[in-house]
Amino acid sequence: MKTYTKYLWFNTPTRRAVVHITEQVREAVRESGVKEGLCLVSAMHLTASVLIQDNESGLHEDMWQWLERLAPYRPDYKHHRTGEDNADAHLKNLLTHLQVVLPITNGDLDLGPWQEIFYFEYDGQRPKRVVVKIIGE
Amino acid sequence: MKTYTKYLWFNTPTRRAVVHITEQVREAVRESGVKEGLCLVSAMHLTASVLIQDNESGLHEDMWQWLERLAPYRPDYKHHRTGEDNADAHLKNLLTHLQVVLPITNGDLDLGPWQEIFYFEYDGQRPKRVVVKIIGE
Amino acid sequence: MKTYTKYLWFNTPTRRAVVHITEQVREAVRESGVKEGLCLVSAMHLTASVLIQDNESGLHEDMWQWLERLAPYRPDYKHHRTGEDNADAHLKNLLTHLQVVLPITNGDLDLGPWQEIFYFEYDGQRPKRVVVKIIGE
Repeated sequence: MKTYTKYLWFNTPTRRAVVHITEQVREAVRESGVKEGLCLVSAMHLTASVLIQDNESGLHEDMWQWLERLAPYRPDYKHHRTGEDNADAHLKNLLTHLQVVLPITNGDLDLGPWQEIFYFEYDGQRPKRVVVKIIGE
Repeated sequence: MKTYTKYLWFNTPTRRAVVHITEQVREAVRESGVKEGLCLVSAMHLTASVLIQDNESGLHEDMWQWLERLAPYRPDYKHHRTGEDNADAHLKNLLTHLQVVLPITNGDLDLGPWQEIFYFEYDGQRPKRVVVKIIGE
Repeated sequence: MKTYTKYLWFNTPTRRAVVHITEQVREAVRESGVKEGLCLVSAMHLTASVLIQDNESGLHEDMWQWLERLAPYRPDYKHHRTGEDNADAHLKNLLTHLQVVLPITNGDLDLGPWQEIFYFEYDGQRPKRVVVKIIGE
């Protein structure tokens, strides 16, 4: 049995951003030497998500509008009494979940035809991490 | 250590559909020979979800109304500029997540008393896949 | 390869409740003896969630208001024809997902700086379980 851990760092120039990370995760799988197993990709912060979607810019625009409709930025969240102003980013993280678990088959990510891995940043402009944890043989 | 991979195919006669798949997943666990481990069940498309809920038809009606309220079908999504008309299905997938990870204990799925596994199809009428990846001993 | 299974029981005095469970999960990791691996923490009911968030009471108030806005309590859900009155709890579970998978690195949970594990109860006042399943070496 093998395990492998890798941390991906992101520091996006804008507060909200999308980073396409399929290749970085695929590279971690190659580095691990695991041929059959599972690959967890999980945000280590509470204001960003790792998710699987289509790499289509129109859809990404729809997703941002939808996120803002369901988990809007507002000044008056109670979390902001701590001095923060990112409660909406926490709610957006809850809505889109923080992580995905991917199968590894024949030494590669076993993704569907249009499945790509994205890091959705809801409160960036500072260094943040994603953990990739691989387990298998 | 053992690993096992199985693909389940679905081609639902209606665009939106619910398929109860607990038995198919349970069968994959038996085929794997794994007695203790983890079982990932994950949609390989971006417009369907694998989720755990109660097998109660009234609740399923509530779920569909809720999905339509939070991620409604509309003609004017930006994704539709590509010729697609299924942006709502992508948002419904985001809302209900694409996958679940289940414990395997004593050679069987370790589910709670009312937990059943469902494939929720948001854009069917074509062949689509779910991957079952099992890892354990 | 090692596996370890533990069930955590909760019987909250109020219908809705938050229980901070990071230490209980960490204890299970220690008991397992696993140094590198994965730890699934998953609700075994359909009306509660295990999630990762900040341990900040204002944020938790924001989360409850948000949950009630997106998945409100209402008397007229179709699920209630069965005699139940908890359809909103099922929808809240769908919204916040039932589970998380956590990396284990160097014998401990590999969490980000503010990540804490919570059990969100949407329909309590009765005994309910969470399964912790650990796999690794």
